[in-house]
Amino acid sequence: MEKQKIGITHGDTNGVGYEVILKAFEDPTMLELCTPIVYGNSKIAAYHRKAMELTTNYRTIQRADEAMHDKLNLVECINEEVKIDLGQETPESILSAKKSLDAGIEDLAKGKIDALVVNPLNPEKSLGTNSQTEYILSKMGREGTPLTILLNDDLRIALATTHLPISEVAGKITKELILERIRQLNMSLKRDFKFTQPRIAVLALNPQPNEEEENAIKPALEDANTERINAYGPFNAGEFFGEGAYRYYDAVLAMYDEQGKTPFKVVSKDEGVIYVANLPYICTCPSQNSQYDIAGKGVAEVLSFNHAIFSAIDIHRNRAFYDQSHENPLPKLYQDKREDPKKSIFNVE
Amino acid sequence: MEKQKIGITHGDTNGVGYEVILKAFEDPTMLELCTPIVYGNSKIAAYHRKAMELTTNYRTIQRADEAMHDKLNLVECINEEVKIDLGQETPESILSAKKSLDAGIEDLAKGKIDALVVNPLNPEKSLGTNSQTEYILSKMGREGTPLTILLNDDLRIALATTHLPISEVAGKITKELILERIRQLNMSLKRDFKFTQPRIAVLALNPQPNEEEENAIKPALEDANTERINAYGPFNAGEFFGEGAYRYYDAVLAMYDEQGKTPFKVVSKDEGVIYVANLPYICTCPSQNSQYDIAGKGVAEVLSFNHAIFSAIDIHRNRAFYDQSHENPLPKLYQDKREDPKKSIFNVE
Repeated sequence: MEKQKIGITHGDTNGVGYEVILKAFEDPTMLELCTPIVYGNSKIAAYHRKAMELTTNYRTIQRADEAMHDKLNLVECINEEVKIDLGQETPESILSAKKSLDAGIEDLAKGKIDALVVNPLNPEKSLGTNSQTEYILSKMGREGTPLTILLNDDLRIALATTHLPISEVAGKITKELILERIRQLNMSLKRDFKFTQPRIAVLALNPQPNEEEENAIKPALEDANTERINAYGPFNAGEFFGEGAYRYYDAVLAMYDEQGKTPFKVVSKDEGVIYVANLPYICTCPSQNSQYDIAGKGVAEVLSFNHAIFSAIDIHRNRAFYDQSHENPLPKLYQDKREDPKKSIFNVE
Repeated sequence: MEKQKIGITHGDTNGVGYEVILKAFEDPTMLELCTPIVYGNSKIAAYHRKAMELTTNYRTIQRADEAMHDKLNLVECINEEVKIDLGQETPESILSAKKSLDAGIEDLAKGKIDALVVNPLNPEKSLGTNSQTEYILSKMGREGTPLTILLNDDLRIALATTHLPISEVAGKITKELILERIRQLNMSLKRDFKFTQPRIAVLALNPQPNEEEENAIKPALEDANTERINAYGPFNAGEFFGEGAYRYYDAVLAMYDEQGKTPFKVVSKDEGVIYVANLPYICTCPSQNSQYDIAGKGVAEVLSFNHAIFSAIDIHRNRAFYDQSHENPLPKLYQDKREDPKKSIFNVE
């Protein structure tokens, strides 16, 4: 199998983006795993390289097609001079973050890269949206409903809702949404993570069982079980994470941002990755912000970025394998036309 | 200073209550720290002692007055036979949990014990309330507004609201409530935990700043700072706990149960204690449930219970010291009559 082409955006150019990219590919074994293609600017990269006294070499190209294996390829996609003010969010750093992302998205859409790893930026200022995901969706088209999954080696936490004020969360938790989220998570675990029969834990919304548990989460779990999805719960989040129960499941479905993100960040420390599943393309992101406070100091942790690369590679490979082994059209013959046409009576998916 | 009398309830008698009590006082140094008075039944205790092959001795008494130092005292407060079904919640275990708590509360109210450590029970079934705190308040009178603080050696997390369904949380977050909670927490840190100038971190309610942050939390922080309380925030909960920022503060104010409990349980593992501050009496509780699943197996962790005992002792001692050193009526002379009469212009508290 040919090495995958992994696109990489530089994020905010006054943050730690270039530092983690250069540090990650200082290790030559990283180049054995994938062919990295950074969307950026060679002068900005050189500035960071010098400031942090790094020795990583990169090769400047004009288009992704020119990328070479065993090299850190850098596509020049910013033509003007960009002033660097390490640790500051400036109009220039905000704009250059957007240009890098735009270039990465364009090549992802054209299939010139196999997956895109996006470094952190300020989405409101750079993109006018509340997340990079939202922006990527607006550019790539609306095929598929994104499912945010926070992941590290031991833990996968999917979010049923994202970016909602607390006051709006309960109103969004319907049986339909939860069932759909369980299905999406189940499919992602099979296709992206190679679990043949995933086990999913679903968290309760409230500290004590309330109407959302009775009318939305429990009925959704029952329906999911009828579809032979191994989903369990609803579990009290505090007890679930406190007792380490997440170790017994392949993934957890949390009801809102903080319910999933807070325990994830405590458990995963510096290794977290954000992956947006259920889309026709693959995007991952280190679960850190731009870390202006440590920009240029050479102390940025590279673990989270490395894991974002590894995850992108693994998911791309797993998907290809899954899709190939499911190409056989036989199950379609057994499809029960009276039910959801996507669901075969033998549950072969 | 005389050793403090610490009342202890046995919790659900089919749970791990007696196991942790007997294990904790197997260590003779525990008896050097306090005079324990268990509210229970000698036959139930004997059953658990035998089942777990423990060697701890206890001395049966009829009233707390008869308690002896250097002994594990057990006040007989259940007269009828109680059938033990380890690991089962039965009408008998539910009732005996209530009787033990009632006896403890009665002696706490009469001042026969210095603090009460309550073992877990099912509050809905045993007491008809949603928490032991609620029941204790109903019996002890409504003086003071309870402030729940989750604590271990490194971390104190107070909850601005408790036991609310998620849909009701945002509506309760007002400037008045948050300011009052900051004041209560600040006072508890001074009086109960001996911090002379506490540093308090206040969490945001929403994942992105919203109206509650603007109209309630930030103005409350400003007012608190005007009162010379060192309160900071609002902080995003995920980032705050993920980055371990809690280490730089003496306490954290979380907005609702799960926001505080989930990271607390992940960080504190088996050592957590629940303390209800801002009341005229002292109650602590190990932060575990009745653990029916491991009842009678002899594997219950005793750390959390031990910490509940230590916390009760420390808080009682700190309070006595604080109250003694603040008996001097001098600050009253300087009190600014035009403002809140509780607040002196020199902020001497």
